Amino acid sequence: MILVNGEARDQVSAMDRGLAYGDGVFRTFPARNGAPVQWQRQYAKLARDAAVLELRVPQADVLETEVRTVCGDEPACAVKIIVTRGAGARGYRYTAEGGCTRVVTSTPLTENVSAQREGVAVRRCSLRLAHQPALAGVKHLNRLENVLARAEWSDPRIAEGILCDVEGYVIAGTMTNIFIAVDDALATPRVDRCGVAGVTRERVIEAAALQGVACAVTTLSWSDILGADEVFLVNSLNGAWPVRDLDGQVRMPGPMTRWVQGWLEQADDAQTA
Amino acid sequence: MILVNGEARDQVSAMDRGLAYGDGVFRTFPARNGAPVQWQRQYAKLARDAAVLELRVPQADVLETEVRTVCGDEPACAVKIIVTRGAGARGYRYTAEGGCTRVVTSTPLTENVSAQREGVAVRRCSLRLAHQPALAGVKHLNRLENVLARAEWSDPRIAEGILCDVEGYVIAGTMTNIFIAVDDALATPRVDRCGVAGVTRERVIEAAALQGVACAVTTLSWSDILGADEVFLVNSLNGAWPVRDLDGQVRMPGPMTRWVQGWLEQADDAQTA
Repeated sequence: MILVNGEARDQVSAMDRGLAYGDGVFRTFPARNGAPVQWQRQYAKLARDAAVLELRVPQADVLETEVRTVCGDEPACAVKIIVTRGAGARGYRYTAEGGCTRVVTSTPLTENVSAQREGVAVRRCSLRLAHQPALAGVKHLNRLENVLARAEWSDPRIAEGILCDVEGYVIAGTMTNIFIAVDDALATPRVDRCGVAGVTRERVIEAAALQGVACAVTTLSWSDILGADEVFLVNSLNGAWPVRDLDGQVRMPGPMTRWVQGWLEQADDAQTA
Repeated sequence: MILVNGEARDQVSAMDRGLAYGDGVFRTFPARNGAPVQWQRQYAKLARDAAVLELRVPQADVLETEVRTVCGDEPACAVKIIVTRGAGARGYRYTAEGGCTRVVTSTPLTENVSAQREGVAVRRCSLRLAHQPALAGVKHLNRLENVLARAEWSDPRIAEGILCDVEGYVIAGTMTNIFIAVDDALATPRVDRCGVAGVTRERVIEAAALQGVACAVTTLSWSDILGADEVFLVNSLNGAWPVRDLDGQVRMPGPMTRWVQGWLEQADDAQTA
C-alpha cells in the first residue's frame, strides 16, 4: 500500500523536487504487527536529515499513523518513508514557504534467517565514494553512487558490496554500515565526509558504550577489514549480518557479532512487546 | 503543459527510481515556435548521459514530437525533459529489462535582454563540489549540491553563484558553465571530476575551434577568474551572460563575450529559420 500526503494513491507530482533534484530524504525500516520498530530513532534521524536540507518534516504522529495504515495487519513489513521539498517551479532555488511531499509505502518482509545465522558473502566495489561533507551522513535522495555500485555485480550469492572513498578508506556497504571486531573492541568508519550515519550503526555504537565495549569511529583501510577478527554489516531491516565471505576470504561469525545481533533483537523485542 | 510517457498528465509513479534515487538524467533548453533549439545536440547529450547510467533513452523523434506538443504555439518556451529508470521495487539494483519514465514540460520563456546586454552580478558560493569522476559531466538528477549552493543567497540582484571544487578550482555556476577570456584566448574549467558538460559549453568550445580562437579546457583558480579580461556564463536557455559584477569586482562586457553571444544567436537563428 502507498500513501502520498496521507491519501491512498501511488502517484506524485511530475514537478516534485524529489524527482527533479533528489531534493529530499528517506528512511527504510521494519514494522511488526503494524508498529514501526525503533520509531523514535527513525523519526529523529529523518528530522535531523531534513534539517540539513532545511526541509519541512511532517509531525511524528502523522507519519506513525500512516505507517500503521500501510502495514495493516501484516506481521512484518519493510516500510519506506520519503519526504521531499514538494512540487516547485523550474530552478534550484527554494523558498521557506514551500510545502513537502511525503510518501509512505510498505512491502511484506521475509526475514533472511540464514543470512543472520550463517552470514553473507560480500565483494569490494570499484566505485569510490566522493567526499561531500555538506551532505555526509544524511540519507538523502541523491543515491546514484549506490545505484552504480550495486550495478557492479549480478551474482545473487553476493549479498552486499563494500564501498571505499576517494582516499581508499572503507566507508560502508551499498545499503549497510560496516563494523569490525578486533580483540574484543569494535570499530566502524567515520561518515563525516561521505556515507550514511544509519540508525542501526548509531544503536551499535550506543550499545557498545553502555556495555563498556570500546567502539572506535575512525578511518579503516581495506587491510584493516581483511585483518579483523570479525566483520559484520548492519541496517534497520536486516539487523546485523556476519560476513562469511569477504571477497573470497572465508570467515566464521564470531562472538562480538553474535552479541550485537542479540542486543539488537532483544531491544527490538522489548520495544514491540 | 506536461506529458508523462506521452500522456497529458502531471503525475509519475511514487515508486519511480527518479524519485527514490535520482536515477535519471535531464535537459533544459529553449524552443521557438514549438521547435526545440539545437535539438540534435540536446538529444545527443541526453543519450550520452543516459548511457553513463545504462538508462534506456526514448527515440529522438518521440521526444521531439512531445516537445512540439507541450510548446504548442507559444513563441518561446523553456522545455525540460526528464528521463528516469522508471518504477522499481525496493533496492538499488536495476535490471536490463526495466523500463523508463519520460517527463516533458514547458513554461513560457521571457528573454532577459538586460542580462544579455549589460551582464549579471554573480557571487562565489561556499559549498565545494565533490569529485565523482563516475558521474562528472553528466546532467543527472542528483542535484543536491546545486540546491544547497543556490540556497546560499536570496538577493534577487545576484543572478548566479560560482562553485569551486574540493581543491578550490572554479568549476561552474549553479546552472551555467563559465568561460574566461584572456588576451583573445578563451578558457573554461575541465568537468571530468565534477560539474556538468553543458551543450552550450560544448558549442562555444567548437565555435572557438572553427574560428581559430584558442580555448583551453583546464583547471582555473578563483584568481584566474578575477584576473581575466572577460568572464561570461553560458547555458542553453540564456545563451551567454557577461559577468558585470564578480563578487563586487565591477567589469564591462568585452569583445570576446560579444562575439560568443553573436555566434550562438546566429547559429540558433540559422537553425530555426
